[in-house]
Amino acid sequence: MKKYWSSRIQNLVPYTPGEQPKDRKFIKLNTNENPYPPSPKALEAIHKEAGESLRLYSDPEGVALRKALSKAYGISEKQIFVGNGSDEVLAFAFQAYFGVGDTIVFPDITYSFYPVYAEMFGINCEIVPLNDDFTMPIDKLIGNNNGVVITNPNAPTGIEMSQQDLRRVLEGNPDVVVIVDEAYVDFGGTSALPLLEEYPNLLVVQTMSKSRSLAGLRVGYAFGSENLIQAINCVKNSINSYTLDRLAIVGGAAAVGDQEYFEKTCSMVMETRERTVQRLKELGFQVLPSKSNFIFISHEFVPAKKLFAQLREEGILVRYFDKPRINNFLRVSIGTEEDMATFCDVMEKLVRQS
Amino acid sequence: MKKYWSSRIQNLVPYTPGEQPKDRKFIKLNTNENPYPPSPKALEAIHKEAGESLRLYSDPEGVALRKALSKAYGISEKQIFVGNGSDEVLAFAFQAYFGVGDTIVFPDITYSFYPVYAEMFGINCEIVPLNDDFTMPIDKLIGNNNGVVITNPNAPTGIEMSQQDLRRVLEGNPDVVVIVDEAYVDFGGTSALPLLEEYPNLLVVQTMSKSRSLAGLRVGYAFGSENLIQAINCVKNSINSYTLDRLAIVGGAAAVGDQEYFEKTCSMVMETRERTVQRLKELGFQVLPSKSNFIFISHEFVPAKKLFAQLREEGILVRYFDKPRINNFLRVSIGTEEDMATFCDVMEKLVRQS
Repeated sequence: MKKYWSSRIQNLVPYTPGEQPKDRKFIKLNTNENPYPPSPKALEAIHKEAGESLRLYSDPEGVALRKALSKAYGISEKQIFVGNGSDEVLAFAFQAYFGVGDTIVFPDITYSFYPVYAEMFGINCEIVPLNDDFTMPIDKLIGNNNGVVITNPNAPTGIEMSQQDLRRVLEGNPDVVVIVDEAYVDFGGTSALPLLEEYPNLLVVQTMSKSRSLAGLRVGYAFGSENLIQAINCVKNSINSYTLDRLAIVGGAAAVGDQEYFEKTCSMVMETRERTVQRLKELGFQVLPSKSNFIFISHEFVPAKKLFAQLREEGILVRYFDKPRINNFLRVSIGTEEDMATFCDVMEKLVRQS
Repeated sequence: MKKYWSSRIQNLVPYTPGEQPKDRKFIKLNTNENPYPPSPKALEAIHKEAGESLRLYSDPEGVALRKALSKAYGISEKQIFVGNGSDEVLAFAFQAYFGVGDTIVFPDITYSFYPVYAEMFGINCEIVPLNDDFTMPIDKLIGNNNGVVITNPNAPTGIEMSQQDLRRVLEGNPDVVVIVDEAYVDFGGTSALPLLEEYPNLLVVQTMSKSRSLAGLRVGYAFGSENLIQAINCVKNSINSYTLDRLAIVGGAAAVGDQEYFEKTCSMVMETRERTVQRLKELGFQVLPSKSNFIFISHEFVPAKKLFAQLREEGILVRYFDKPRINNFLRVSIGTEEDMATFCDVMEKLVRQS
């Protein structure tokens, strides 16, 4: 019994984020950050705003940022919610659509924050296994539930679900909300945004932490029907009116406005990814087909856990999940061309030594 | 029935923050912002951080900020939690200490976000009336509850509760958490921080939005026993690992480090407050004794609601709460010396016209 702790958190096991090293300098391929700096326009906007105006509250509705997103994606401002990173947006969405005692469905291998949210908010989970090839078990995501949560492309596998399959899930669950977490969609994936007009039960969540190189600014957003967006706003305004600070609002808006820089840096990450995949395959790695800014890899005879520890010794951080089915895989974020060349060289050495 | 909305938010009435005008230029005395700019050292730290490093996640534990607070307040880092504004800190604290179906006690006239949190998180409220002179009803805050929440100095009255009375509340509720929200304490109030050593059930919440002139940066924090701080971290890490962005962490830390600027600007606000109180009393206003950066005023014959509307016409925003017992009061934030001279001039005109 934890004295003074409420019943809702007595048995809670929080999410563990990837390591943020403070002392030593690592090649950091463990938290799916973008290796390229944020758009110069985003930085310029932040510098311009960082003055006397910080004494005033930020706009609780983040209108400037929603306008920029509206323009970039061709979706009405009323269908856009902005928040303090997509983790917060997801936490609000869970509370907005899933009641205490409801049951939501998601795969066994996906973003490991979902079961934590569910436990936190008193929601039951029906966890369905991915197919043997790590693709989505579409039939198991349909019917007899109070909500569905899908990461697409999925994490940590990087595998994309087809739009046809997504339509099946949306049509098979017309009375509950289907959350599609598109944190990684900008690295070659196909967004569900064009489906918004057809499906009032679709919520698409995205983030500036990966493709916009702004993990340190904390900006996430959601697109959905006006009704779904009103529900998230109801939750947000019952918890914290001002979730986005002034710098995040202007910086995020400027980043969204700089389409050219966004496309260029995303392309660079994808090109490096393909070269890395090629080299790793030559070293005997299985590499799942990735549409994200990371790859999920497993070697034919060197255990992932061993490689994980050895890479750390060599000054390279990657992510290892000690969980059934994926405990012989490593998730490796795509860094710069140079970082990935070093990573492949080190991998080559480690595989040869084994 | 709101389609797709969860049962927990079907009947929720969110908090309404004070107006943030976008079009017209007002003298803005409605949201208790500080009229002076943030510390130049805070702005300098933000400019220094606003570069390539924003591509990386922020420190989920906000160590740099907690170190600065630890040094400034002489309290161990392990006893400090930092979050995205004190509203978020309070929301996490409610979830950390108060379970579904628990009953918490707070006064009828206080920060109007408390009943919203309670409704959001399934907590029952026992709302006890302030005494007729708007002081705290100490006896009613003791016993037979699962938690107590006090704003001290109280809002929107500005009245401070004595440390002796606070001790009575803490001692009368040894098995539940007493949250003391000190958003306004730096304008002449006495903090409960020295009581932390004696009372393991005390959580003190503060913010940088008022006395540190950083409402637009979103930084709040809590001090408590290690055990209470661990509980809030458990909630935070089950909702959003990275609540503070990189700019808020460094800006907040630098602001806390600039003690001289902090003391100077707080003194200026207090001096202007006293001069304003004097003039308003001469105009026939009752002014509650304030230890905060706002005053709560009521005129002997001009209705507050009328003055509120007239002030807006004159380009001055103040806050009016259309609630029993206080619907003939206005809450007026203390602005610059010049703003308050204008405010008093306009009030003089309005009172004469009535």
